[in-house]
Amino acid sequence: MSTIPGAVGGHAAPISKRVHVVGAAGYAASELIRLIARHPSLELGALESSSHAGSPIADHVPALRRFERAFDPPGTLEATLAAGDVVVFAGGAELARANVPALLERGARVVDLSDAFRLAAHANGAVYGLAERYRDALRDARFVANPGCYPTATLLALLPLAPFANDIVQLVVDAKSGVTGAGRTPATANLFAEVAEDVRAYGLGGHRHEAEIVQELGAAGIDAPLVFTPHVVPIRRGMLADCYAIFSREPRGDAVRASYERAYGGSRFVRLLPPGRAPSVVGVAGTNDAEIHVSCKGRVVRAISAIDNLGRGAAGNAVLNLNLMLGLPEESALDDRAARL
Amino acid sequence: MSTIPGAVGGHAAPISKRVHVVGAAGYAASELIRLIARHPSLELGALESSSHAGSPIADHVPALRRFERAFDPPGTLEATLAAGDVVVFAGGAELARANVPALLERGARVVDLSDAFRLAAHANGAVYGLAERYRDALRDARFVANPGCYPTATLLALLPLAPFANDIVQLVVDAKSGVTGAGRTPATANLFAEVAEDVRAYGLGGHRHEAEIVQELGAAGIDAPLVFTPHVVPIRRGMLADCYAIFSREPRGDAVRASYERAYGGSRFVRLLPPGRAPSVVGVAGTNDAEIHVSCKGRVVRAISAIDNLGRGAAGNAVLNLNLMLGLPEESALDDRAARL
Amino acid sequence: MSTIPGAVGGHAAPISKRVHVVGAAGYAASELIRLIARHPSLELGALESSSHAGSPIADHVPALRRFERAFDPPGTLEATLAAGDVVVFAGGAELARANVPALLERGARVVDLSDAFRLAAHANGAVYGLAERYRDALRDARFVANPGCYPTATLLALLPLAPFANDIVQLVVDAKSGVTGAGRTPATANLFAEVAEDVRAYGLGGHRHEAEIVQELGAAGIDAPLVFTPHVVPIRRGMLADCYAIFSREPRGDAVRASYERAYGGSRFVRLLPPGRAPSVVGVAGTNDAEIHVSCKGRVVRAISAIDNLGRGAAGNAVLNLNLMLGLPEESALDDRAARL
Amino acid sequence: MSTIPGAVGGHAAPISKRVHVVGAAGYAASELIRLIARHPSLELGALESSSHAGSPIADHVPALRRFERAFDPPGTLEATLAAGDVVVFAGGAELARANVPALLERGARVVDLSDAFRLAAHANGAVYGLAERYRDALRDARFVANPGCYPTATLLALLPLAPFANDIVQLVVDAKSGVTGAGRTPATANLFAEVAEDVRAYGLGGHRHEAEIVQELGAAGIDAPLVFTPHVVPIRRGMLADCYAIFSREPRGDAVRASYERAYGGSRFVRLLPPGRAPSVVGVAGTNDAEIHVSCKGRVVRAISAIDNLGRGAAGNAVLNLNLMLGLPEESALDDRAARL
Repeated sequence: MSTIPGAVGGHAAPISKRVHVVGAAGYAASELIRLIARHPSLELGALESSSHAGSPIADHVPALRRFERAFDPPGTLEATLAAGDVVVFAGGAELARANVPALLERGARVVDLSDAFRLAAHANGAVYGLAERYRDALRDARFVANPGCYPTATLLALLPLAPFANDIVQLVVDAKSGVTGAGRTPATANLFAEVAEDVRAYGLGGHRHEAEIVQELGAAGIDAPLVFTPHVVPIRRGMLADCYAIFSREPRGDAVRASYERAYGGSRFVRLLPPGRAPSVVGVAGTNDAEIHVSCKGRVVRAISAIDNLGRGAAGNAVLNLNLMLGLPEESALDDRAARL
Repeated sequence: MSTIPGAVGGHAAPISKRVHVVGAAGYAASELIRLIARHPSLELGALESSSHAGSPIADHVPALRRFERAFDPPGTLEATLAAGDVVVFAGGAELARANVPALLERGARVVDLSDAFRLAAHANGAVYGLAERYRDALRDARFVANPGCYPTATLLALLPLAPFANDIVQLVVDAKSGVTGAGRTPATANLFAEVAEDVRAYGLGGHRHEAEIVQELGAAGIDAPLVFTPHVVPIRRGMLADCYAIFSREPRGDAVRASYERAYGGSRFVRLLPPGRAPSVVGVAGTNDAEIHVSCKGRVVRAISAIDNLGRGAAGNAVLNLNLMLGLPEESALDDRAARL
Repeated sequence: MSTIPGAVGGHAAPISKRVHVVGAAGYAASELIRLIARHPSLELGALESSSHAGSPIADHVPALRRFERAFDPPGTLEATLAAGDVVVFAGGAELARANVPALLERGARVVDLSDAFRLAAHANGAVYGLAERYRDALRDARFVANPGCYPTATLLALLPLAPFANDIVQLVVDAKSGVTGAGRTPATANLFAEVAEDVRAYGLGGHRHEAEIVQELGAAGIDAPLVFTPHVVPIRRGMLADCYAIFSREPRGDAVRASYERAYGGSRFVRLLPPGRAPSVVGVAGTNDAEIHVSCKGRVVRAISAIDNLGRGAAGNAVLNLNLMLGLPEESALDDRAARL
Repeated sequence: MSTIPGAVGGHAAPISKRVHVVGAAGYAASELIRLIARHPSLELGALESSSHAGSPIADHVPALRRFERAFDPPGTLEATLAAGDVVVFAGGAELARANVPALLERGARVVDLSDAFRLAAHANGAVYGLAERYRDALRDARFVANPGCYPTATLLALLPLAPFANDIVQLVVDAKSGVTGAGRTPATANLFAEVAEDVRAYGLGGHRHEAEIVQELGAAGIDAPLVFTPHVVPIRRGMLADCYAIFSREPRGDAVRASYERAYGGSRFVRLLPPGRAPSVVGVAGTNDAEIHVSCKGRVVRAISAIDNLGRGAAGNAVLNLNLMLGLPEESALDDRAARL
């Protein structure tokens, strides 16, 4: 719950943790602010932005029109951080690298949305924030490296293949992402007139998320080589990852399906779809959900996942991690029963 | 709150009213279902659709993937209607005309989203469901004619000019609507390939919403002739109404502004913007909010309003009316503190 | 060149062939009409549409506003067909199956854009209309089965791998198509409000274009099994086919590149891109061009092609085939030096 | 015709004028390059860009993939300008102001797409480049100030009302523009994720194009005050201007219609639509055409025009002016018989 000055509404709640956001002017940060503002046990603290410090949030982010406050200047966190507070880094890797270690030393809990600490997260003192893999470690974790959107979509689609790891000889991941994945810093390539009516592959020489995928697949025993091709599609948010696992011998379809059912049977946030239904980006947009289709054809298992790059791929997942870290119900602020068009 | 069979989640609540939806497969109905499902004091009853009866909601409406039930066939309402239930008609005018009178006779409360009963609403036994005008009558109303999206946007923009009615000689309303305003029935004109990269005026010979606007402006004493031009723009939801009131003599800008401040100063759902800020469709999408800009230039007052045609223009407004009719807090299920991208 | 009654402009030309279009109201047909209208040696004949017969083209197809004529009723072709005329079928397979044989018997030349005769084209008396494979047979062909858009994009990307066919163990094609690929017949799934902000896989149980791809790859000696996943992306026209060939042993990158250079070195209509550049849908939209990227990683060759599904994937390719069949310069009407945004 | 080094294609032509483009990396410049490259009597000279000098055009502008040259550095024009050449300024007003006078002094012919010289064009030694008003002056003009896109759309819609000027008491223009109108320089407001699913008014305090509209309406005797509201809509190119003229007494509809028919009856580039048909942005996109609807209701004349902001609103109009200045057929390079989807 939120009682920030200038915010409309707000209800009394006995205990609530304060969450500061550093790098608060980007797309993932906006979504995070939206989610924390509706969270029954969290309240918003500093909203630091070096690029937009002092400018009214309502001018900069239409979706946050109701927030009658301005972005806070760097230093606000420093001045207001109190025991028990959590800090979420929603800016770039450099920002996180420069500030996280000192914060941890001061005892703050930290969730980092950048890729600064994801590789060798454990060695960095962080837990890799994918609940389906590290739920126990995330409870009471003090430092969480929130996964990238591409890795999240890919790992949710491929991890249930771990029991078949020995038979997988090649992985091909063809991913399609909404444009917010590229951030809010202006760049010609992300202008409306460049993105609309186009679909484009990028990172053909290698994408920075590839190592993260390989690391986490490897940790689950899946060591097959990976070809990863990200694309930008003209949507604002959402992502589809078509993952193809090429086997050395034809897998048994029922065994594959059974493994996915074991993985996601009771899951609140992952929907394994009936065989005939395709994942829907619209059906997960604005939520923390993932939808997964799996099917087999000959020696190929095709697993397609849809997530919201700003939801399960960033801010929603961060809130899930906050919930786990703070011992709150996992669904707090993530309990929508429907997406919206 | 919602405890429909097959729905995921749901919490216990002491008292809740059941809301049936007739014509449940359209866009406004989907939004209504989303809002009722999150409502603390309402639960979903029959979801009737003659066109999609028996087909899983999840197949038809990606945003409602979590609803593990099928659309109900016609007759379900009849079979399940109980004392105290409310029925929302979200299909066309014909559907409402054929069914509403009998339901009212049986004592059901009804909200009709079609334009069947909006003209001469009072004579039809209905209250015209615009809270800013008829809040008192809406409390305990048994039959509400929910306004059209264009009229809602236009009336919110123009009604505060009532004190100046005698000086207004002409009204020009140039409105831009998202495509969901045209409904979900397939038509070539609404195909993606026809709508994308286009902007088009329509109804150049006269639009059915015009009489509704004229009626309600007239009821407020604004009798100036109206030229109304609706447009389709390539967005899914949301609407902008640019309203130009031409005066016979230059109005005093501060008096005009003051009237808008009186009208909307304490409003939960209407934001009068500071002079330099333009209304944002994105800032109201998915909410029940309206944003209004007003400015004067010479003998013209320009009032621009933004609403979500599916939110304040249909389903959100219907929930507001349900809240009023049932004596619930006005903000129930409409209490988002932020929109989402 | 075109001298149809009611058409604006038109220049005298000594000899020109008349092209009739059957099924003239769809998207590919509109593009075909546009191309023929600018062709120096072709003129438009009957424009038959059973669904829109008699209705002004300008009302139905904004892009053809200048064409001051109506769609012709069925039977017009029959009444006006003359020796030397060509007939293009741009409607569905059924239309072609019902009418093509009799036309061929009467001596007309035919290009069929449907998939009625593509499988076993030769047995059907047709030439499969992919110039890169069958250029010689297409010269003076009397009946051409124009390839599907997905097969065209896929074959242009994969055919240069024929020399390595023995080493390929699996093919994965992940294709993304603009919405016009689904035709102009109204369907809920193709409404703007369903397509915008979404990306979706379809045909997960098998797509009708798959057999066509397999047939033509096989004819080139590439027999590896194929997994083909088509997607709809929210663009009007254009297509990207990401083709992954998994090899049994690591191929030599320079040999692969060399094969593509041999295939497309002198091509007017296929651009093999420098290694760092990704294919651009915008760069081929409205043209007959294809752009191809090829790169190797381990045992995977990734070839990505971009075409316009209405251009090289339908109407542009049909004009290329007309040019070949009629002994005209290949570039006639296809000689744009630039695409447009 | 074009024989630039590295360009594909090209035919021999006896005489051709060379056109240099300064500020060649923007959207209007790309469209201009496309048009000149297909022009039978013009060829491309220097393509200067200070921001992109030296970078391959194909990397920067997908639509110009076939142009195998790089943007030229500042100074190229200076080094290559020859007698008879024409220079088009497609960058900002500052660029034009700094360079045009010296070029004119050297005898070059100039077309300026910026708004540097449009106000008091005549005093600046320029002809205001709207053929419908100044066709005679444009023939053999040495310096043309190409009109803005908003003024072009507005003037084409309103100028035929000049005979009724005395009766017009107020003008309201509500315009909707594609995003390319804002140029190609990166800005947060023009990012895809900001523009998609939104419609927004801007310039509410006054737009720089307003004075230009007022000047040219005034020159035609239409002196009524103007309220002008521009909007951005999520399309790449194209523009709709809804123009409302409020009369002091009800005009005769047939007299109004007759005036529009006189103005545009024989026009190659302006289509006056039959009363029931609405202007189509798609129908003019990529062309130099305008479509105009006019209707009367009470004391209001509503004239709606559609143009392509990059076509008739910039590059297409510039080519028309070049054709006039150089004594070429008006339709050269502007002779498309169809638009494209």
